[in-house]
Amino acid sequence: MTRKLHLNAFLMGVGHHEAAWRHPRTEPARIADVRHYQNLAQIAERGKLDSVFLADGVALWGNVRHNALGGLEPLTLLSAIATVTDHIGLIATVSTTYNEPYHVARKFASLDHISGGRAGWNIVTSASEAEAHNFGVERPAHADRYARATEFLDVVTKLWDSWEDDAILGDRAHGLYADTGKIHPIEHEGEHFRVRGPLNASRPPQGHPLLVQAGSSEDGKEFAARFAEAVFTAQQTLEEGQEFYADLKSRLAAYGRRPDELLVLPGISPIIGSTDREARQLEQELEELIIPAYGLAQLSHMTGIELGEDALDRPLPDIPVETEGAQSRRKLVVDLARRDGLTVRQLIARLAGGRGHRVVAGTPERIADEIQEWFEGGAADGFNVMPPILPGGLADFVDHVVPELQVRGLFRYEYESRTLRGTYGLARPRSRYAPQGEAELEVAVAG
Amino acid sequence: MTRKLHLNAFLMGVGHHEAAWRHPRTEPARIADVRHYQNLAQIAERGKLDSVFLADGVALWGNVRHNALGGLEPLTLLSAIATVTDHIGLIATVSTTYNEPYHVARKFASLDHISGGRAGWNIVTSASEAEAHNFGVERPAHADRYARATEFLDVVTKLWDSWEDDAILGDRAHGLYADTGKIHPIEHEGEHFRVRGPLNASRPPQGHPLLVQAGSSEDGKEFAARFAEAVFTAQQTLEEGQEFYADLKSRLAAYGRRPDELLVLPGISPIIGSTDREARQLEQELEELIIPAYGLAQLSHMTGIELGEDALDRPLPDIPVETEGAQSRRKLVVDLARRDGLTVRQLIARLAGGRGHRVVAGTPERIADEIQEWFEGGAADGFNVMPPILPGGLADFVDHVVPELQVRGLFRYEYESRTLRGTYGLARPRSRYAPQGEAELEVAVAG
Ligand SMILES: Cc1cc2nc3c(=O)[nH]c(=O)nc-3n(C[C@H](O)[C@H](O)[C@H](O)COP(=O)(O)O)c2cc1C
Ligand SMILES: Cc1cc2nc3c(=O)[nH]c(=O)nc-3n(C[C@H](O)[C@H](O)[C@H](O)COP(=O)(O)O)c2cc1C
Repeated sequence: MTRKLHLNAFLMGVGHHEAAWRHPRTEPARIADVRHYQNLAQIAERGKLDSVFLADGVALWGNVRHNALGGLEPLTLLSAIATVTDHIGLIATVSTTYNEPYHVARKFASLDHISGGRAGWNIVTSASEAEAHNFGVERPAHADRYARATEFLDVVTKLWDSWEDDAILGDRAHGLYADTGKIHPIEHEGEHFRVRGPLNASRPPQGHPLLVQAGSSEDGKEFAARFAEAVFTAQQTLEEGQEFYADLKSRLAAYGRRPDELLVLPGISPIIGSTDREARQLEQELEELIIPAYGLAQLSHMTGIELGEDALDRPLPDIPVETEGAQSRRKLVVDLARRDGLTVRQLIARLAGGRGHRVVAGTPERIADEIQEWFEGGAADGFNVMPPILPGGLADFVDHVVPELQVRGLFRYEYESRTLRGTYGLARPRSRYAPQGEAELEVAVAG
Repeated sequence: MTRKLHLNAFLMGVGHHEAAWRHPRTEPARIADVRHYQNLAQIAERGKLDSVFLADGVALWGNVRHNALGGLEPLTLLSAIATVTDHIGLIATVSTTYNEPYHVARKFASLDHISGGRAGWNIVTSASEAEAHNFGVERPAHADRYARATEFLDVVTKLWDSWEDDAILGDRAHGLYADTGKIHPIEHEGEHFRVRGPLNASRPPQGHPLLVQAGSSEDGKEFAARFAEAVFTAQQTLEEGQEFYADLKSRLAAYGRRPDELLVLPGISPIIGSTDREARQLEQELEELIIPAYGLAQLSHMTGIELGEDALDRPLPDIPVETEGAQSRRKLVVDLARRDGLTVRQLIARLAGGRGHRVVAGTPERIADEIQEWFEGGAADGFNVMPPILPGGLADFVDHVVPELQVRGLFRYEYESRTLRGTYGLARPRSRYAPQGEAELEVAVAG
């Protein structure tokens, strides 16, 4: 079997470009309209994409004065999307820093049942101070957040395993609903959590919903190597992409995992035109709609330093790279500005399309070329597709880039599984509480 | 305008009778099947019912060996139901004891947006010890749980108000998405919570999702009088119902509220037959399917004392009524046993249909008579309908009891509003941060 590309559609309001909401091809009034998101997922499913993904934070991020923010909560939203789709995976972001594992295990189990095995969890540790202040605390240190996340994952996977797959008997005649010998209290006692269990939901169809992660710091990468099955990442150049890919894959063995048990999905924001000129024109239209004050606020948020209008036409000031926030994003921004010798204004324009993710403007063939180069060049197992405007940019990708990838033999023509794990080609984990020797059976179920 | 009855459908797995899952008219295999619940909500909507309601706890309650437990999490589930219904209200249970107000405010805001203004929150304080043990704590004292709940409500309603209704400008030309002067940090600093805000979701369509409650202790009733707009309650006799109704309504004035700002909805489990004999037969079929061991475990759970098989044919032992758990349910059970001189076995049968709620077996006319008597006799503003078997018992209610109530002029023929508040005849609250003088305008919006 030849290796196949995996494609995730990153859904973000009316588009990833920060000025998307001002562009005539978007409808910002639909930012909290469930049908907008259902439509996006249906477009992605029409293109046979692996999954859709919703980012999230537990604070009002960015500057709502100049951008269309404040949409819907991912888990509630994905549940509404599940009911109008059949195959596409549904990945929601939830933080381990301000949540309880029992709630999180339960909600993902629920989404996995509702979607028939299509739930995925993008695990984040909440890098911003604004989020901490909505929970009455100061932001915990970076290492502490990852330590909590690690124990959190331990608890959540125990809870998903707490009902064995065959715990439910449904024996009406004898009045035996479940074999309680196959439903296990987890009796977890750790540094951060004491959780008795079992979960009050039967085992999710996928065993464990798919685990996704996007941390790029040392701790983040170790965490990914241990738990993640798909990793989102922002990489600007092929070389950086290759380096990240090799680095992450090399870390898996230490956790007894094979390289193909984790998929690396760099971000790509495709600005698509039927000619290069058309694509450049769309890019320029969006660039002209950028509001410098907004870009400055975003950049301040990413770098952690205040930047005023007077900074616009100077180089980026020196920024300390060690921080308790999101370490990798800060480094990426600084590297980009240094590498290309950008002023703050130029940097803002470069970041506007994808907040640090790679922007590629061109024809469908050109986009497909880039995807193929990274995929075959050891930098990606697939891509996190971040359309600049939505729904238009996603429809363009699905209708013009996907067919090109299919013709090249890189991407599926039809779904081959109804579960997200199946679509990503990943095995279904067995319950740690189940008797040995059922592994084969369970992998077969995932197909 | 004549006073109209309100009807809520309490959806509980395959039925409220504890042996429902063994009855040939149910399908226990559908306990985690979203289409089962979507179908139930559509049946309720066909009957023009005000709302559907999902109970919840954050532990595996009861004895899963002998009952079909472990379904779906209410908020995720109601979101999936929202997309296949148009008018019916969607009430989810969420605990204030093991959650954070920011998450809860956001999820209900999200469900309210997704459903176009049909979200309601059944506020509970989690009375069981099993729940505490899933969150690493011992169960907080009853009074402490209600104190936390009170502050919790303060925070959540502030968060819902944090975006004024007209905060979003959507002005593309000038690049002004929102008027940030109308989006307010809440800066809450209290005994239990410190929350900066604002919420990262715009104001819910209903202003505040509908607030529902079911506590019956002194603290519970005070809490309801202060915050609740609908109250579920278990009352066995008309006299008790009248007393509870008058008591609760009399408490409202102290909080500056009118009696009609809170609806009292006692539970009723209707066992419906086209003749009395048919109804009694269904009742008996269900009674024969009861498993004594299960009934004992349920009773132990409600009363807080261990009861073995040897207790079955004796009177209920003495039980202390003061407890840190659910005070009112315990009192109801004890009163019922004493009043009717029941053995434990008889008590179990009486509770099996509705866990302490009133069970009425008979023809549709007979059920309608009871409803009318309570409604006109000052014991109810409507009912919390708890069908013994689902979907059959709900379909019977909708197809046979509802028309009888309509002919008697007690119940609507058509929905008159698309929001839950509108359907319940309740006003839309204005944002506490909005300038004065907009109250009339906002009430009009709710219609
Ligand atoms: C594509 C992508 C999506 C992300 N989505 C979120 C998100 O939804 N919420 C969030 O808090 N962080 C998100 N992050 C940030 C990462 O989870 C992580 O915090 C960040 O990359 C910093 O990594 P570090 O914590 O290992 O330093 C995302 C990152 C990437 C690359
Ligand atoms: C119809 C009805 C539904 C209820 N649903 C729930 C529920 O879903 N979850 C829960 O924890 N408690 C539920 N309760 C219990 C009440 O919220 C409350 O805890 C109980 O009545 C005890 O009241 P008290 O705490 O004031 O003593 C329900 C009660 C009634 C009457």
